[in-house]
Amino acid sequence: MAGSSFGNQFKITTWGESHGKAIGVVVDGCPAGLPLTEKDIQSFLDRRKPGSSPFVTPRKEKDEVEILSGTFDGRTTGCPISLLVRNLTHRSSDYNHIADIYRPGHGDYTFDHKYGFRDYRGGGRTSGRETIGRVAAGSIASKLLEKLGIDLYAYTKSIGPVSIDPTCFSREEIQNNPLFMPDSASAAKAEEYLTDCMKQQDSSGGVIECIAKNLPIGIGEPVFDKLSANLAKAICSIGSVKAFEIGDGIEVSKARGSQNNDCFFLEKGNIAKKTNHSGGILGGLSDGSDLILRAHIKPTSSISAPQTTVSRNGKEEEIRIQGRHDPVIVPRAVVVVESMTAITLIDMLFSNMTAKIDGILKFYER
Amino acid sequence: MAGSSFGNQFKITTWGESHGKAIGVVVDGCPAGLPLTEKDIQSFLDRRKPGSSPFVTPRKEKDEVEILSGTFDGRTTGCPISLLVRNLTHRSSDYNHIADIYRPGHGDYTFDHKYGFRDYRGGGRTSGRETIGRVAAGSIASKLLEKLGIDLYAYTKSIGPVSIDPTCFSREEIQNNPLFMPDSASAAKAEEYLTDCMKQQDSSGGVIECIAKNLPIGIGEPVFDKLSANLAKAICSIGSVKAFEIGDGIEVSKARGSQNNDCFFLEKGNIAKKTNHSGGILGGLSDGSDLILRAHIKPTSSISAPQTTVSRNGKEEEIRIQGRHDPVIVPRAVVVVESMTAITLIDMLFSNMTAKIDGILKFYER
Amino acid sequence: MAGSSFGNQFKITTWGESHGKAIGVVVDGCPAGLPLTEKDIQSFLDRRKPGSSPFVTPRKEKDEVEILSGTFDGRTTGCPISLLVRNLTHRSSDYNHIADIYRPGHGDYTFDHKYGFRDYRGGGRTSGRETIGRVAAGSIASKLLEKLGIDLYAYTKSIGPVSIDPTCFSREEIQNNPLFMPDSASAAKAEEYLTDCMKQQDSSGGVIECIAKNLPIGIGEPVFDKLSANLAKAICSIGSVKAFEIGDGIEVSKARGSQNNDCFFLEKGNIAKKTNHSGGILGGLSDGSDLILRAHIKPTSSISAPQTTVSRNGKEEEIRIQGRHDPVIVPRAVVVVESMTAITLIDMLFSNMTAKIDGILKFYER
Amino acid sequence: MAGSSFGNQFKITTWGESHGKAIGVVVDGCPAGLPLTEKDIQSFLDRRKPGSSPFVTPRKEKDEVEILSGTFDGRTTGCPISLLVRNLTHRSSDYNHIADIYRPGHGDYTFDHKYGFRDYRGGGRTSGRETIGRVAAGSIASKLLEKLGIDLYAYTKSIGPVSIDPTCFSREEIQNNPLFMPDSASAAKAEEYLTDCMKQQDSSGGVIECIAKNLPIGIGEPVFDKLSANLAKAICSIGSVKAFEIGDGIEVSKARGSQNNDCFFLEKGNIAKKTNHSGGILGGLSDGSDLILRAHIKPTSSISAPQTTVSRNGKEEEIRIQGRHDPVIVPRAVVVVESMTAITLIDMLFSNMTAKIDGILKFYER
Repeated sequence: MAGSSFGNQFKITTWGESHGKAIGVVVDGCPAGLPLTEKDIQSFLDRRKPGSSPFVTPRKEKDEVEILSGTFDGRTTGCPISLLVRNLTHRSSDYNHIADIYRPGHGDYTFDHKYGFRDYRGGGRTSGRETIGRVAAGSIASKLLEKLGIDLYAYTKSIGPVSIDPTCFSREEIQNNPLFMPDSASAAKAEEYLTDCMKQQDSSGGVIECIAKNLPIGIGEPVFDKLSANLAKAICSIGSVKAFEIGDGIEVSKARGSQNNDCFFLEKGNIAKKTNHSGGILGGLSDGSDLILRAHIKPTSSISAPQTTVSRNGKEEEIRIQGRHDPVIVPRAVVVVESMTAITLIDMLFSNMTAKIDGILKFYER
Repeated sequence: MAGSSFGNQFKITTWGESHGKAIGVVVDGCPAGLPLTEKDIQSFLDRRKPGSSPFVTPRKEKDEVEILSGTFDGRTTGCPISLLVRNLTHRSSDYNHIADIYRPGHGDYTFDHKYGFRDYRGGGRTSGRETIGRVAAGSIASKLLEKLGIDLYAYTKSIGPVSIDPTCFSREEIQNNPLFMPDSASAAKAEEYLTDCMKQQDSSGGVIECIAKNLPIGIGEPVFDKLSANLAKAICSIGSVKAFEIGDGIEVSKARGSQNNDCFFLEKGNIAKKTNHSGGILGGLSDGSDLILRAHIKPTSSISAPQTTVSRNGKEEEIRIQGRHDPVIVPRAVVVVESMTAITLIDMLFSNMTAKIDGILKFYER
Repeated sequence: MAGSSFGNQFKITTWGESHGKAIGVVVDGCPAGLPLTEKDIQSFLDRRKPGSSPFVTPRKEKDEVEILSGTFDGRTTGCPISLLVRNLTHRSSDYNHIADIYRPGHGDYTFDHKYGFRDYRGGGRTSGRETIGRVAAGSIASKLLEKLGIDLYAYTKSIGPVSIDPTCFSREEIQNNPLFMPDSASAAKAEEYLTDCMKQQDSSGGVIECIAKNLPIGIGEPVFDKLSANLAKAICSIGSVKAFEIGDGIEVSKARGSQNNDCFFLEKGNIAKKTNHSGGILGGLSDGSDLILRAHIKPTSSISAPQTTVSRNGKEEEIRIQGRHDPVIVPRAVVVVESMTAITLIDMLFSNMTAKIDGILKFYER
Repeated sequence: MAGSSFGNQFKITTWGESHGKAIGVVVDGCPAGLPLTEKDIQSFLDRRKPGSSPFVTPRKEKDEVEILSGTFDGRTTGCPISLLVRNLTHRSSDYNHIADIYRPGHGDYTFDHKYGFRDYRGGGRTSGRETIGRVAAGSIASKLLEKLGIDLYAYTKSIGPVSIDPTCFSREEIQNNPLFMPDSASAAKAEEYLTDCMKQQDSSGGVIECIAKNLPIGIGEPVFDKLSANLAKAICSIGSVKAFEIGDGIEVSKARGSQNNDCFFLEKGNIAKKTNHSGGILGGLSDGSDLILRAHIKPTSSISAPQTTVSRNGKEEEIRIQGRHDPVIVPRAVVVVESMTAITLIDMLFSNMTAKIDGILKFYER
């Protein structure tokens, strides 16, 4: 099956392996007339770049993007936008020792079983580098959202046991610390926790939250393509995500209806909600409140502490994964979560344009 | 946009409103040669039927299914299977008083905004009755899974604050109590909790867990169509689901790699995992362990306790929703979660058939 | 594979066999607010109804459509529209004698091979009755086209060797004769030809032409979803169509560029084309001229003249197909070609709404 | 809308403009384990290369392909295969004089209308260079067909009024003459005809025929995804194709059933057809006979003879298109038709694998 495409009206197709020649994405369905340069895309890619703090892999990659098609004179043409990032510093030899061994927590075993053999260098297609294509595409979706007046951002909500203090939330702070946390005190604590993890040759998980403000009401489709459903797929398609929440998320299962329902009221003549337990989605459609979602990310599978495992030829072995690995994926995944959310929102905003005959008649004005 | 279809090789298209003439589904891509009668499908529909306990709506619907196409002489023909359930006992007049008012927690407001007007009778397309099509289709997917030797089941894991005791888990018990809990003592406590909710004119949320045993290894596609991603969409497309988990789910964000990784070992010569934190999915593909997922369901939005809200014509009003409503959706949603999982698994099993050139050559044997 | 759906934004899913209980279609993606009653749909179905002339099967079917979902108070709601036509007069016993024999020109042999067995009654899913779903859906697409000011019609261009005389073209005449020809003299000649075919227990092919006037410029997508490509699929998916042409069609292969190019000029200040060899499509997009396409239909495969063939159990046999069959499919297929064109045009018109960032901003006006 | 992808299980996504940096394709859904090198792909690309005869554009492009992903150690991995061809010799200045003028027969006018502006250099996305992606992908599909024992080839059937003589058909001859005609005498006559066209600053159309031998029976899906329908879309999505035929094609409309039906008989115990008017497709499915299709290609739109047209700013002008253009597209389009056929066949062969429950059980053998 061909599973490397996502979206319908705004469709992205990613390709590339960690240690192949390059990684890239084709963005199809971007409307014509959007100003777009490599700089716009690069600013997104730089947010997931390795080597920028002690808590991410020291592997140095410049990850410079090249626009190969779909723009002319600094604007999109309506034709597919092909984006390419060359893999430069891959040291395949780092991986020879794991060519024949199944790393716990990784997809080595399942890939081998499915395809008969695998590209063992750095995880191949299962590598986190696969997200370069998502982020490059996400930068374009984000520019479209901006044009539509929608404000989208994501941040680290927790690292291991260290959660942000909501009363100390500062949006500016997000870009100020290497963990992308909106609360500097919690970020400092999280850094301590990570330092300890690293000492113990271990890794940490965490939670990413993403918010969209000012979405039009009614975005999403009633049954299978609920906004929540498509976001769930988008987010859970990111490697290492093991849980997805909208609004109050898992808390709703313990709540009562009288607590969980958001009562409507009039705010300066407009309909508004007194609370936002729904996370901005009612009946599968955006309800005008902030869209709030969370991704729960597992700890990095590659740890240098010893683990027992089995080799391809069926022998039990001990493994210590050396290489260059992030002790925590979360900070670099923040922009990935934001990108996948942006792509899904644009796709659903485009879908929404045919909901009413009046809207279509207005569009065609004939 | 057309959002009423789900799946690729095994595709379902549902239609119908709560108070329209009928509700149904077209199942396309079911292979020829599967024995299938209305009885097979009815047994699934009966599991979501209203009126069977004090904890579900007293609205009586027989929900009898009719196969309109796709079978001949008791077997599927490979052509689309059209299934129909007539709506019999809809009393639209029950809903006249809410025609012009936005019920908190429901999609009334968002639908009205998106489409310009809505079928207010019983929620129309947002009604829980929409799941009839999913369950009817799920019964066919489940028959296919059974043929392939895969064992799939779902149950209520918690109702409000009452969770099952895993040490008392009994699979037989699931069908024995009206809440579909695998632990009779917890079921009794949950019934008490629900009785209290009802007294207070309130409702409760809960958690459904679903398990698939004996899945082949390698099911799912590496990037956007990860098994976890497609299941996330399937489950989050069910109304009232606000969170989705695979394996350890939200717990992974607090875990360390050394705790969360499942070490491989040899069990009678076969590769196995010592633990199953991954919930049966590694690198987005099934790993041979039990597939474990959970859906967090919000409390029923329709409560008879008073709530403040706003009407279509922009006036604040108090609302008390009378009608016939379930105080908790969870028990009737168990078979819905199981059905959506079955549909997703069959679709991904079919996709997997083209993963290897050897498999294709073997299939065509030319 | 699931091959019973067509379209993306405006998607139809058909189901049903000739001699099953019913035949139907789900129309998904129809915008809300379109006035729609069963009468609107019935008028289209009546154009393909059997029993209305000596040149169509005497099998009597009222083919009455029932709307099961998707409308409320006489308007579409934006939810999927399910349409049902019961099969009433099927006499399966007519077909017992062909249960085990492969009829020349039919899909009996190929279906048997693909699926392992087949519904032999009246061709099952390969029956011309399958087009009921297409026509029912087409009536809705046609109403949308009408709202957009687009004028679409189809007619019989030739029956066997008898072609219409373009200088005698009369649009009113199309509905006046049983062959749907826009030229009464040619229609009379064609009737003679068909009478002769019937005497000789034989059948005839023919050509259907379809015109769309007043299409907006730019409809279609540049590469694989060219308007011409999607129309080609739509038309060639109709049983018995063996060739498809746009504009000058097969004549272009003999033409020179200087003859085939349509020169632009100014007509009252607007850009126009001096000729329309292109049939209204340039670069895969509508060019503002009349869209012109043709479908070449093979003679009915069921003839009562003797033919040699082979049975399921591998014996050569002579077959004379009695039953109730049309000596020519063309007249009843006219509305099918028109319907598939309408469905494709609406789907592509909807797609076109996201071509320009300006159009999107205008739509959302934020 | 995103219209740059084709296929479902075997999906290609093309990108790139004539005068952008590069042109390419992502092939998704290719099974793992297929031997594949750049040489395999290059041999296909070389068949559409410019500059190889007096009858194709003298523009020199080496069109060297680079595999960027999806292979490892000379075999496919099951991951998407990204293929890149750099544009080297584009002289954009050639096109400055037509930046503001609508060339007759081209998509300039329709693109401008749809997108608000266009990449005027060499036609941008409407250029014939767009087919590089199709041919690169087609080479992979062709390798898969070969593995399955299916023999696929295409050739020029006619150039302008010069058709091949079927009695002189020689498959070896196809690769021997610059027009890819299977009959050297006709090729010589066609060369004369083309020389005359060029003298008159004019261009010619032609017909391409494509044959597939040894297809399994039953390939295709009954209704909308008939093999004929998907091939029609595939072929009509190639620029300049204005008509598509299967088997007897347009001739069927004049035929009688007794002439057009192919009678079955037994050939060494196997079912066979006495004739092949159907072109290898019955009921939308492959019938075991040779698949035969034809594409009718219009004459090159770019001619140096003077034409009248209109400019962007609404003035009538005379245009003489100089540049470097093929006087006939047909010879270079032969490999494009073959490639699109190969891609469609592989996609449909993959789809067919889930037709029968027995086949699925055999595949999984559990």
